[in-house]
Amino acid sequence: MAINIEEIQAPIAQEMQDFEEKFRVSMKSKVLLLDKITNYIVKRKGKQLRPMFVFLTAKLCGEINDATFRGAALIELLHTATLVHDDVVDESNYRRGFFSINALWKNKIAVLVGDYLLSKGLLLSVHNGDFKLLEIVSDAVREMSEGELLQLEKARRLDINEEVYFEIIRSKTASLISSCCGVGASSVTTDVDIIKKIRLFGEKVGIAFQIKDDLFDYGNEEIGKPLGIDIKEKKMTLPLIYALNRATWLDKRRIIFIIKNQSHKSKKVNEVIEFVKSSGGIEYTTNKMNHYINEALEILHSFPLSPTRDSLEGLLRYTIERKK
Amino acid sequence: MAINIEEIQAPIAQEMQDFEEKFRVSMKSKVLLLDKITNYIVKRKGKQLRPMFVFLTAKLCGEINDATFRGAALIELLHTATLVHDDVVDESNYRRGFFSINALWKNKIAVLVGDYLLSKGLLLSVHNGDFKLLEIVSDAVREMSEGELLQLEKARRLDINEEVYFEIIRSKTASLISSCCGVGASSVTTDVDIIKKIRLFGEKVGIAFQIKDDLFDYGNEEIGKPLGIDIKEKKMTLPLIYALNRATWLDKRRIIFIIKNQSHKSKKVNEVIEFVKSSGGIEYTTNKMNHYINEALEILHSFPLSPTRDSLEGLLRYTIERKK
Repeated sequence: MAINIEEIQAPIAQEMQDFEEKFRVSMKSKVLLLDKITNYIVKRKGKQLRPMFVFLTAKLCGEINDATFRGAALIELLHTATLVHDDVVDESNYRRGFFSINALWKNKIAVLVGDYLLSKGLLLSVHNGDFKLLEIVSDAVREMSEGELLQLEKARRLDINEEVYFEIIRSKTASLISSCCGVGASSVTTDVDIIKKIRLFGEKVGIAFQIKDDLFDYGNEEIGKPLGIDIKEKKMTLPLIYALNRATWLDKRRIIFIIKNQSHKSKKVNEVIEFVKSSGGIEYTTNKMNHYINEALEILHSFPLSPTRDSLEGLLRYTIERKK
Repeated sequence: MAINIEEIQAPIAQEMQDFEEKFRVSMKSKVLLLDKITNYIVKRKGKQLRPMFVFLTAKLCGEINDATFRGAALIELLHTATLVHDDVVDESNYRRGFFSINALWKNKIAVLVGDYLLSKGLLLSVHNGDFKLLEIVSDAVREMSEGELLQLEKARRLDINEEVYFEIIRSKTASLISSCCGVGASSVTTDVDIIKKIRLFGEKVGIAFQIKDDLFDYGNEEIGKPLGIDIKEKKMTLPLIYALNRATWLDKRRIIFIIKNQSHKSKKVNEVIEFVKSSGGIEYTTNKMNHYINEALEILHSFPLSPTRDSLEGLLRYTIERKK
């Protein structure tokens, strides 16, 4: 049974609609160029997973209120800021099917727009005294940048192991989803146990989400992202780490040589992909992903049954069943 | 009489020394690559004008305390973050005589390090409840990015006038110095009139500072920045704006043509510089700068005479008498 995002959104449909308008207003500037770009950003919005996590966890733990909206806007502003900065970082020409801000407007503007969005997010929180929310989100920004830098550091030396892999994906991806859930809960309750529990739920979902993303690199024709892109960027993800750990000395040397020196050749990249597949790297990684999903489910099931809980379960399933 | 920065620092010498250590600690990370880069950032520190403004204005308005230190660190972290992002933006290979982070470590890392520093600054403030300081600084970040973007927007169309010029330099430069002064005062007093007055002082100094910077483009052999760089980047600053406003139709057309199409040729850039000089653009701009300096002095003199006030007066004089 395919998962329908609109169905998942049902318990918070009105809030998601109101949020879109509030978010647009929160980016307004008197500088024309900025307004053009932020309008463009609103148009290319994705599946809105982050605000969905905020509103659903808020509803799971209490009553959605104005702080929930501001929390969701803070996350979107800061996340959009890092996406815009990422457009410079990734040198990617596409994001979500549109040209990236970078390709259209050049690096110069991208960095400044990122800084602008960031400051707008900060001011929104500071003006409303949302300090707990600000703390949660600042922590996520710190973790995300540390995680990405750790990954870059490791990519240079190709010496990554499974433990470091999980440390990287926990900080670069899971910290954001965890902070969405933390912001949702913190906006409606001060119960620290509940907040802690829901953050842990977000972390598990985030880890599974990133594992799924890393699996896409090994074959899914529906995805926009080209196959083998991680290998080309010398990012060692779980399927490859597992396969290398179990490889003969000769195979290991051959694969590492390709990644180091020939990863610009598609044929050679395909050789790595085949090696990983035949070593059982995909099955192992899929099992790991399911393990995290089950842990997340267990936490979720400690909350009473409700349409909101069902929706969060739907989001969990979406994480692993999505086609891109 | 030449101005000695150490003499200016005398009333806050101990605080500046303590600050250096505290700032270094505030950037610490468990990621090796990050620690390497932040150590490098500390080493290439400049004249420390921003912390000087914070500590001197704090001392002028009350007793320096822990919040003053945290305020100075917040500004340095956020400012360093924007400098690191700027390294990407400016595509400059040098800053303060060292290679820029960008040239050494590539854009990818530069953007992430910027995000990291920023989050560290936020967390420092949030964990200590420095919300007023955070508000002042976030406002400055917003103004700076809006100001730079406004300048870029105007550079495309070359339609800038004197009013827009002052709007640009007020937001892109003066807002930062104003926020240093506001943070200094807010860390020691809640008197809104005092805080407002000292922020206005900072704004006037900042405007004069940027005018001086823009004047450097028209001739000073001691400066590291190459002559005519603003013209090459199609940034219209006050000397040029003034000269164009008073030019014949023919001269105006010639100069605009050079800026639009020939600004990569040094000889042509020199032609623009000579045109500005012979039109009295330098004198006019220098007078404007002195006007802002006098306004700043007037505000400063409303405070009782003290070694701290003298030092701030020294900083003011430094602004216009510096050689680079």
